[in-house]
Amino acid sequence: MNIILLSGGSGKRLWPLSNSIRSKQFVRLLNHNGKYESMLQRVYRQILKIDPSANVVVATGQSQVNIIRNQLGKDIPICIEPSRRDTFPAIALASLYLRDKLNINETETVIVCPVDPYVDDSYFEGLYEISKIVNNNSLYLMGIEPSYPSEKFGYIIPATDEKVSEVLTFKEKPTKEKAKEYIKEGALWNSGVFAFKLNYIINRINRKYGYIQYSELLSGYDGLEKISFDYAVVEYEQRIKVMRYCGFWQDIGTWDSMTKVIPTNTIGSAILDESSTNSYIINNLNVPVIGVGCEDTVIVASQDGILVSNIESSETIKQYVENVEISPMIIEMEWGTQIILDNSKKCQTKKITINSDKCVSDYITDYYEESWTVLEGAGEIQMNNTSKKIGQGDVFKISKETKFSLFAQSVMTVISIGVWC
Amino acid sequence: MNIILLSGGSGKRLWPLSNSIRSKQFVRLLNHNGKYESMLQRVYRQILKIDPSANVVVATGQSQVNIIRNQLGKDIPICIEPSRRDTFPAIALASLYLRDKLNINETETVIVCPVDPYVDDSYFEGLYEISKIVNNNSLYLMGIEPSYPSEKFGYIIPATDEKVSEVLTFKEKPTKEKAKEYIKEGALWNSGVFAFKLNYIINRINRKYGYIQYSELLSGYDGLEKISFDYAVVEYEQRIKVMRYCGFWQDIGTWDSMTKVIPTNTIGSAILDESSTNSYIINNLNVPVIGVGCEDTVIVASQDGILVSNIESSETIKQYVENVEISPMIIEMEWGTQIILDNSKKCQTKKITINSDKCVSDYITDYYEESWTVLEGAGEIQMNNTSKKIGQGDVFKISKETKFSLFAQSVMTVISIGVWC
Repeated sequence: MNIILLSGGSGKRLWPLSNSIRSKQFVRLLNHNGKYESMLQRVYRQILKIDPSANVVVATGQSQVNIIRNQLGKDIPICIEPSRRDTFPAIALASLYLRDKLNINETETVIVCPVDPYVDDSYFEGLYEISKIVNNNSLYLMGIEPSYPSEKFGYIIPATDEKVSEVLTFKEKPTKEKAKEYIKEGALWNSGVFAFKLNYIINRINRKYGYIQYSELLSGYDGLEKISFDYAVVEYEQRIKVMRYCGFWQDIGTWDSMTKVIPTNTIGSAILDESSTNSYIINNLNVPVIGVGCEDTVIVASQDGILVSNIESSETIKQYVENVEISPMIIEMEWGTQIILDNSKKCQTKKITINSDKCVSDYITDYYEESWTVLEGAGEIQMNNTSKKIGQGDVFKISKETKFSLFAQSVMTVISIGVWC
Repeated sequence: MNIILLSGGSGKRLWPLSNSIRSKQFVRLLNHNGKYESMLQRVYRQILKIDPSANVVVATGQSQVNIIRNQLGKDIPICIEPSRRDTFPAIALASLYLRDKLNINETETVIVCPVDPYVDDSYFEGLYEISKIVNNNSLYLMGIEPSYPSEKFGYIIPATDEKVSEVLTFKEKPTKEKAKEYIKEGALWNSGVFAFKLNYIINRINRKYGYIQYSELLSGYDGLEKISFDYAVVEYEQRIKVMRYCGFWQDIGTWDSMTKVIPTNTIGSAILDESSTNSYIINNLNVPVIGVGCEDTVIVASQDGILVSNIESSETIKQYVENVEISPMIIEMEWGTQIILDNSKKCQTKKITINSDKCVSDYITDYYEESWTVLEGAGEIQMNNTSKKIGQGDVFKISKETKFSLFAQSVMTVISIGVWC
């Protein structure tokens, strides 16, 4: 099957693990065989488990490219939206990417899926089933059997309670009372999945933008009208089908929901005393966090800041995070990570980790001179047309506007001190 | 007057602002005209306000010398105990220091005072009064009028309720019920102050150790029996007087008591939302701390770690801090501060601040080579018998076993990267 993973989001609600670059889907807190993975990594792993030959393309903006490659590998196809134009242009661009860049046949199925549902594998088995039954003129959705009368989701009212049913109608995010009524009528949560044949969407694209190639849509992308897929396509569709999913489903958008799926009450260097109840410490720092007498509290510490929140109130943190204007202190790059250790007026000290067999390429210091000290690991640098082996304790300077690249033969950690010119 | 300030303590209960070097009396959170001062700085300032010609000597161990000079200036007399031998040897050594080093006449009064009472200026006015009325054979104490039946203090039962009274008897730390009884009898808290003529203590020293000079007691100090001043002196004294203090008095040994005297609910980069009640954020880091829906909570963040504690339970943190074996990440030196930014297996990255007109002298890197990058400020280094001006952006290496010194003409900040040989 061919899957477009829509990856957006600003990541204010999982602060300080999420930041303006690391949206919630990139936060690595989900347990998989004793290792931590992100929502993106989990969804990608689940898709390939159900269909090892699936073509997955991630539709996103430029700011997420590095972290996606860091988490899924450098070969993951990424369709980069030059600007945010809502879901119809994004899906259109990714669909043309599938056809024109990945040479997917127009008779194949495309499934558009948000990148952040926390679900059982059976969810992706459902998507796989859908991919087999979609025909030329049909649009399929995925409906989630509601576990409570949520006010946060749109609802789909199916015609029958069969696994696959016609859709009778859609309902906007309701009040709690309305939600209860809908659920009595057999309503499902709209999970944001769309499945169709590739030629189905090409047809809609051609109608809207004229016959167009991927590269053409890309170059004119900034000028496109902002319009959602629901508004551009779903509203005009007479025959929509929905598949019912009744397994575990969680929208992990807040610390409240995240604490329901993380494996332990403490992650990282943390002590929670015995008098604490229903509390969590998630600590990404090297120094300890101690919680004493905490009740219904989530404590999260990272290089970007520290949150202490009542679990149920954690949804409200967004407004405070928005008032805190700091640039991210930890950034995941395609080749590793950068942590800002110190920001002075005219200097910046960073700890840089370059993963084994990765290359920091075309690194140019535009604005300042940097001196790098190798803490651990070994590699080879290319600078000014010469190549040199470097290892622990070595120091080298990168002058302004020098282009250089560093290939790490083993995991390298480096302290970089940049002095502004 | 002559005052011996006893400065000890391990600083577990105000973690993470206190650590194995920075005991509670060095934590700078007390407001004085909009600036933060430590307990030590406050007490010292109060003493000099009442008696500008007071001779103050701090009795302490080697580990506190740097931070005391950092906070009180390099000229503050410090009597350094080579090891911990309880209060009688400490007071004996400091008394001989007064006589032999500071040339104080034996007929003058000495007042021994713990370094950490949070009191009004009138407390020190009381000490000044005592210094005027002590005679050759009298021992004076300071009693605090109790504000509640505490189980944490010893009690003094005075003969009368006059400002200065004979002591009838002493009572060990009581139960709450016993404390109530004592208070009905007019008991006072024992504040740990002792006042006497210098020849009074010299007399006791000679009786115990023979006629001895400061330098002799110092060199034999490690072999002295551990014995408290109460046990060695007070128990044998027939006529003890106590002065009554009825002003504000707080023993700031826990976050519970500290939050009662700090000026605001948030210190440093911190946001406490409107739904939070009776909560405090004290943040020494450069990244923000956000508290949402906190109740009766104290949140403290420093380079050494993060504490989130119910205020009333904050006394219990000691046991958890003891289980966290990390060396201090922030150290106050005589000349400034050192913050460890990163500890790797074979490298350490520090941010060093050297205060204006201060000198990092006789700095020898025994174990590793260091490279220093100047972030801000200007100064002059002496190394290998040469002298050189340095400023922003300059980098210099200090090789193993090289002796060097750096004088800061303005506040200098430096990043030091040490590589272990």
